Amino acid sequence: MKIGVLGTGTVGLTIATKLAELRHEVTVGSRSADNEDAAKWAGEAGGDASSGTFADAAGRAELVFNCTSGSHSLEALEMASAENLDGKVLVDVANPLDFSRGMPPTLSICNDGSLGERIQAAFPGARVVKSLNTVNAAVMTDPESLSEPTNIFVCGNDGPAKEQVRELLEDFGWEAEAVLDLGDITAARGQELYVALWLRLMGPAGGASFNIHVVH
Amino acid sequence: MKIGVLGTGTVGLTIATKLAELRHEVTVGSRSADNEDAAKWAGEAGGDASSGTFADAAGRAELVFNCTSGSHSLEALEMASAENLDGKVLVDVANPLDFSRGMPPTLSICNDGSLGERIQAAFPGARVVKSLNTVNAAVMTDPESLSEPTNIFVCGNDGPAKEQVRELLEDFGWEAEAVLDLGDITAARGQELYVALWLRLMGPAGGASFNIHVVH
Repeated sequence: MKIGVLGTGTVGLTIATKLAELRHEVTVGSRSADNEDAAKWAGEAGGDASSGTFADAAGRAELVFNCTSGSHSLEALEMASAENLDGKVLVDVANPLDFSRGMPPTLSICNDGSLGERIQAAFPGARVVKSLNTVNAAVMTDPESLSEPTNIFVCGNDGPAKEQVRELLEDFGWEAEAVLDLGDITAARGQELYVALWLRLMGPAGGASFNIHVVH
Repeated sequence: MKIGVLGTGTVGLTIATKLAELRHEVTVGSRSADNEDAAKWAGEAGGDASSGTFADAAGRAELVFNCTSGSHSLEALEMASAENLDGKVLVDVANPLDFSRGMPPTLSICNDGSLGERIQAAFPGARVVKSLNTVNAAVMTDPESLSEPTNIFVCGNDGPAKEQVRELLEDFGWEAEAVLDLGDITAARGQELYVALWLRLMGPAGGASFNIHVVH
């Protein structure tokens, strides 16, 4: 599949690498066409990997990952353009973290909204699926690195879009039953607010490579 | 131990019953001394169980559970009085849920604060420990009812207070290693905001009796 990955941070490049390993045709997008991290990544990934602007990456893609930092996601998606996102599955991995008040960050969108919902509202033609924002990049693409099976969440208004994301997650190593569908895009509130707990769990977990398993 | 349980809802009475079974001397406190639910509970629990006002329950107690609804907790604790809470461990189980905008509820305190912190600030002499707010009443007092071990969180500014709560949690059935210390009382933000995810996990979990296990 032709996949655009917006964002050249650890999350974006880790996901792009995994997708390239899975033989997808990946374009990493950034603010400018000559982003060095993106060009370096494309050179190392080889094959069909390429880099370009946000608009290049979204325009070529059948499916788009938003891996930009949450505080810039809406702006980055504007640069990608609504036209380039129309009808496409848009996997929103970003968290609306506000680092301006020091560590740990707070969330810039409170519990009566979410970045996922704002993206869906701003780009009504995109088929937004919130996922993967509850784990770090290493766990996203290698869930089997943890000592026991854990869960990953999806939410969104478009059922077939969620199914498509579930299949990609399975390719990433998530078991089918590990993927929990939390409902429509308003569930992004829960997925994003959980990050406030995640930040404090890093202490007892001894780092950022951990996740939760829902037990009933 | 003499324990006061503030609140006569499911959470308060479930915790009070468990504590009475563990042979603690429990007083359930409510807004008025003639609360029927509290009196009925004390009659059925027998032994040293009693009921009274918030001030009665806190005044008699060596340790206090706040099981009032989050939107009324500060008011209830004012009725219990700062003097009756001074120097005592105060286990804050409440969530600041706002049901005024329909279901699922939102949180009335956002991520730059928490009910736990507000209670500690309003009652500086109390040794506040946030705990148990991340599970329903059945799981709080019977964690072994779940199919696998899960985790419960404590946070607060007073180390010995957290240790005392940890011991009580072990009496409730939580394994020592299941109790994760998230740090000072500001971690109450994470514990409370997680509830937004918890509310959406009820769907996939098939009800409210579930919990999470932190896996690394």
